[in-house]
Amino acid sequence: MTAAPLRLHPDRLFPADPDTRVVARRLYAEVAGLPIVSPHGHTDPRWFAEDAPFGDASSLLLQPDHYVFRMLYSQGVPLEAIGIGAPVDPRAAWRVLADHYHLFRGTPSRLWLDWVFHSVFGLDVRLAPETADLTFDSINEQLARPEFRPRALFDRFNIELLATTESPLDPLDHHAAIRASGWTGRVITAFRPDPVVDPDFEGFAANLDRLGAMTGEDVGSYAGYLAALRARRAAFAAAGATSTDHGHPTAATADLDRGEAERLYAQVRGGGATAEQAELFRAHMLTVMAEMSIDDGLVMQIHPGSFRNHNADLFRRFGRDKGADIPTRTDFVRALRPLLGRFGNDPRLSLILFTLDESAYARELAPLAGHYPALKLGPAWWFHDSPEGMRRFRRQTTETAGFHNLVGFNDDTRAFLSIPARHDVARRIDCGYLAELVVEHQLDEDEAADLAVDLTYRLVKSAYRL
Amino acid sequence: MTAAPLRLHPDRLFPADPDTRVVARRLYAEVAGLPIVSPHGHTDPRWFAEDAPFGDASSLLLQPDHYVFRMLYSQGVPLEAIGIGAPVDPRAAWRVLADHYHLFRGTPSRLWLDWVFHSVFGLDVRLAPETADLTFDSINEQLARPEFRPRALFDRFNIELLATTESPLDPLDHHAAIRASGWTGRVITAFRPDPVVDPDFEGFAANLDRLGAMTGEDVGSYAGYLAALRARRAAFAAAGATSTDHGHPTAATADLDRGEAERLYAQVRGGGATAEQAELFRAHMLTVMAEMSIDDGLVMQIHPGSFRNHNADLFRRFGRDKGADIPTRTDFVRALRPLLGRFGNDPRLSLILFTLDESAYARELAPLAGHYPALKLGPAWWFHDSPEGMRRFRRQTTETAGFHNLVGFNDDTRAFLSIPARHDVARRIDCGYLAELVVEHQLDEDEAADLAVDLTYRLVKSAYRL
Amino acid sequence: MTAAPLRLHPDRLFPADPDTRVVARRLYAEVAGLPIVSPHGHTDPRWFAEDAPFGDASSLLLQPDHYVFRMLYSQGVPLEAIGIGAPVDPRAAWRVLADHYHLFRGTPSRLWLDWVFHSVFGLDVRLAPETADLTFDSINEQLARPEFRPRALFDRFNIELLATTESPLDPLDHHAAIRASGWTGRVITAFRPDPVVDPDFEGFAANLDRLGAMTGEDVGSYAGYLAALRARRAAFAAAGATSTDHGHPTAATADLDRGEAERLYAQVRGGGATAEQAELFRAHMLTVMAEMSIDDGLVMQIHPGSFRNHNADLFRRFGRDKGADIPTRTDFVRALRPLLGRFGNDPRLSLILFTLDESAYARELAPLAGHYPALKLGPAWWFHDSPEGMRRFRRQTTETAGFHNLVGFNDDTRAFLSIPARHDVARRIDCGYLAELVVEHQLDEDEAADLAVDLTYRLVKSAYRL
Repeated sequence: MTAAPLRLHPDRLFPADPDTRVVARRLYAEVAGLPIVSPHGHTDPRWFAEDAPFGDASSLLLQPDHYVFRMLYSQGVPLEAIGIGAPVDPRAAWRVLADHYHLFRGTPSRLWLDWVFHSVFGLDVRLAPETADLTFDSINEQLARPEFRPRALFDRFNIELLATTESPLDPLDHHAAIRASGWTGRVITAFRPDPVVDPDFEGFAANLDRLGAMTGEDVGSYAGYLAALRARRAAFAAAGATSTDHGHPTAATADLDRGEAERLYAQVRGGGATAEQAELFRAHMLTVMAEMSIDDGLVMQIHPGSFRNHNADLFRRFGRDKGADIPTRTDFVRALRPLLGRFGNDPRLSLILFTLDESAYARELAPLAGHYPALKLGPAWWFHDSPEGMRRFRRQTTETAGFHNLVGFNDDTRAFLSIPARHDVARRIDCGYLAELVVEHQLDEDEAADLAVDLTYRLVKSAYRL
Repeated sequence: MTAAPLRLHPDRLFPADPDTRVVARRLYAEVAGLPIVSPHGHTDPRWFAEDAPFGDASSLLLQPDHYVFRMLYSQGVPLEAIGIGAPVDPRAAWRVLADHYHLFRGTPSRLWLDWVFHSVFGLDVRLAPETADLTFDSINEQLARPEFRPRALFDRFNIELLATTESPLDPLDHHAAIRASGWTGRVITAFRPDPVVDPDFEGFAANLDRLGAMTGEDVGSYAGYLAALRARRAAFAAAGATSTDHGHPTAATADLDRGEAERLYAQVRGGGATAEQAELFRAHMLTVMAEMSIDDGLVMQIHPGSFRNHNADLFRRFGRDKGADIPTRTDFVRALRPLLGRFGNDPRLSLILFTLDESAYARELAPLAGHYPALKLGPAWWFHDSPEGMRRFRRQTTETAGFHNLVGFNDDTRAFLSIPARHDVARRIDCGYLAELVVEHQLDEDEAADLAVDLTYRLVKSAYRL
Repeated sequence: MTAAPLRLHPDRLFPADPDTRVVARRLYAEVAGLPIVSPHGHTDPRWFAEDAPFGDASSLLLQPDHYVFRMLYSQGVPLEAIGIGAPVDPRAAWRVLADHYHLFRGTPSRLWLDWVFHSVFGLDVRLAPETADLTFDSINEQLARPEFRPRALFDRFNIELLATTESPLDPLDHHAAIRASGWTGRVITAFRPDPVVDPDFEGFAANLDRLGAMTGEDVGSYAGYLAALRARRAAFAAAGATSTDHGHPTAATADLDRGEAERLYAQVRGGGATAEQAELFRAHMLTVMAEMSIDDGLVMQIHPGSFRNHNADLFRRFGRDKGADIPTRTDFVRALRPLLGRFGNDPRLSLILFTLDESAYARELAPLAGHYPALKLGPAWWFHDSPEGMRRFRRQTTETAGFHNLVGFNDDTRAFLSIPARHDVARRIDCGYLAELVVEHQLDEDEAADLAVDLTYRLVKSAYRL
């Protein structure tokens, strides 16, 4: 069998209508070359600190990518067969991916991987059983070259800024090393306090102890706990962070008085909290974090509504982040009211909301963001970071929230090589959407061109205070 | 900087595909000139009673429009800066709007305002900082002329009928004055009893007292309360009303027996009702209103699911209707069953449902309206009264409910000058949708043309018994 | 008045964009002639056992079709007028349909009926008041001919396999007669145990007694009950069944221990179960059915979320299935976890999920099916088995679940003559969707052509183990 060619068509993801496509092309031409600003993601700062070569194709592109291995798993591929939870020959793992590459037809993973294969590695054949070895060998050979090291790729990708995400317990050594190295690439951290704010987080009590030890604060008291959090926020800000991030199961917020908060903290600190108390503590701490944000200027992000580790057996065998996090219905209107009642009218707060429940876009989130000065909407998230997902996001938020209550694109990924592909998909979809507004005479083209730059570059810089 | 031109393209809002656009144009040509029938809205009957000139551009187009000022507020503009809650120079307020007009790109407010600027006032430059004074002066100069008075615009707009909405406590003097004036414009009222039916309404107890005083009924008893409501419904019907409207937080209905209803009324009348009792009373009263509708023939509308005055601080400072009403998830299937169990099969009842929760369109509302003889669906409402919102409405309701269980368009607005723009958007979107069905060969064009007239003119007249 | 022509355009339901339409045509040409595989439906096996002529047009096409008569009823047509609950002259009933045929514009019923009129009966005039008698007479005349008997139509329709659905209490005599007849058409049954698994089913206690009598098992004990279910499953499998089907009000599952299950069974068997106990029993039995499926290999289907017989008065007067079943909001993430915790990772289980709550497509179902090896998604169901419904399904599931966690098309109908029309609509919509992916350069056309065959033929055969 002859290998099928791999091509990236210059018009990909643009609307089919010829008049609209012409406008989309013109808009895209203005933003295609803009630098990448990536304010939220999960790449490993060690890569940029050490600048060591990446390993082989499987360990770089397959094993860390839960979008990819969850699809394989859903079709009966054991995780061990691709080297998760068990050692495997990387070539064998790659062949498993090649054998199942047809499963990704119509998915964003296919778009991202094809971009990496073609644009990063120059491959011109589609991944398939008959091209498994050829692609594996070619990628590995290239990864060994200097121009494929992390910093070289960072520069080649035209990344202006890349934020990673760390726990308050992280010493931020890699970020310090990056700054000390003299390399000019801008890699910053973001403050993700779930391990010391969520009583249901694994090792919560021990995490609090470490937090106290790191900061010299007495986390036995609520006052000491808050002081420790403030100290770590300051350390993160000093390491370049401009934002915090909160990954709670719901969007619940609460605004307890001091006495209630102290009693509740004692309860969760002691480990005897009920599920309701844990939820109330998380809820209260979001409002506390908002208050601290007003003080220290860190932009606040909330990513609620993922049921983590839904597959209990898989979690027991393989641990977290194995493709078994499932979105749930999420309420925002009642959930956010306590926090918004305190700080929603304060323009010093910049609170960015994300959702996995698209039914909230037009019903709850666009109306909230189109009213409260403190609120903005983050882009289509996770499963919805896809062509159709982005289109639904635009169509369901723009008419009520406009464009300026949004924050541009997040790639939110640990798959470093795919970052340009992800931003490129967003730019193409946005230009296609704007082109539709032009062709339907809702916007003039000069306005659409201006908005294309907003959505690509200006909004993310202002919303994240970069 | 040169001012950008303001144009209204004749093909605006039609689908981009050329074949579809040609059909949409033909369909639109048949309905573009039909008179406006506006069965539900919030214009002020005083305008038509007194026929005084409207004031300046800011007080007419900016300060009363919560779609507009909520967007400004969301981007940090204090309400006082545009004259809400504080006096302001109207020109300064207008400049604030002009400075922020780019925020409305992609929103229906932009479509409506541009139409008003161009079609009502003949402006041919886009609103922008550099055209603020020019547009302000031009609009004000024109508003002073006789042909811009309310009745002249009513005639120019080709309005066949316009319904306002009043409380049962309204003496309907303006409507009486309109009828007594000899002017032939048809302006009718609609009966909105929330102030005397919702125990959580501000001043509920005093409202009941006034209701008793107006009608001479003893509202100390449930029987007297019902008699008073019947009397006011009769007075509204005599003033031309053909409908009632009910703006409850949920769609809950109940069907209490007489004894329960009397006890519950005593409770809410006395002011000691719990939140649950208040909800049950509202729920019960919807069924009572349906029963009265069967007697007096008034069409019944339910507009549920808005969380009113979500921003408590803003409500304290500025009061109601300041852009802080947020939609909530709304159940219809269980909620409406008590009412439908009593009257759902009675073709004498015409009950029109609206929703802010679009997830209910295909799941609940179209199946309900496609079965119960008494039920019809109102058009896309409020935040969803927009091009994409209307498209979602059509795509998610037609296949199950058809076109004849719908009621045509409502503008639902207090922004009188924008009424033709709103109806025009609806006609364009509907013709575009029908054109798609023609081009996909689901309908023949003669059928689409017939439906275009139904959606524009015939359905609203039959559904509202006009 | 001249009758309007009835035509079926060869491009119907393809996207309007000319380039996309060309690709859709090519893809469709490859699958239009593939045999029909219908793994889930509600035709009457008696038709194929006895092969008697169908009756008249009204009794064949109108009275059994709840999609059709619910629309008529919603617009004030009494069910008695079309022969439901009262005898009627079939011609008079047909004239009622003809008089109201405009109500079906834009609905899938219109597509299906027009196909039947034109492709099965060769009619070339649109149904309308003036063609009522002509169409009625023509259809009846043709139905009397041998080539319109059930088996002849089955062959003409190119049906490779047709599954009916029966209760465990059905003796499966018609299926036995079909097999004994020597006719080669493959008509199989499916096991739908709701009457003996759902304590709220009419006649549940008597149904259990009959179950015991049929199987010789002692259904007084839980063990005997399970043995009886196993025996009937075995009988169904022997009659060709490859699947079970479960029509519960929710998707709740539970996994009780043996003692709890025995106590709960005693409760529901005795008739004294509360609503919560009935729900828990249904929930538990889904997990039991999954366990039995792992043993006997029957594919399991869950069709949750219909509020049955919502119109109580209509139910009292006319009974079940009168167009008054209404979808409800349905949770899957928490509901399915007990069952998935037991069997979700077991590739021997094939569990196919359906929903009437489209908000779950992208949020819950695609993420679940894109992870659990045992899960697959059934196609757009019931009210959503329509052009727009199918498009929403594809756009909201593909990017997360891919195509291979789906199961192809189900017609799910008792309207035998419309089966080819329904499959044809699905093929056209799918080819249009795939063509869009090609024209947007997300897929190469060879891949789309391969997927078209998957969606039409291969996936259904593998998912249902046919």
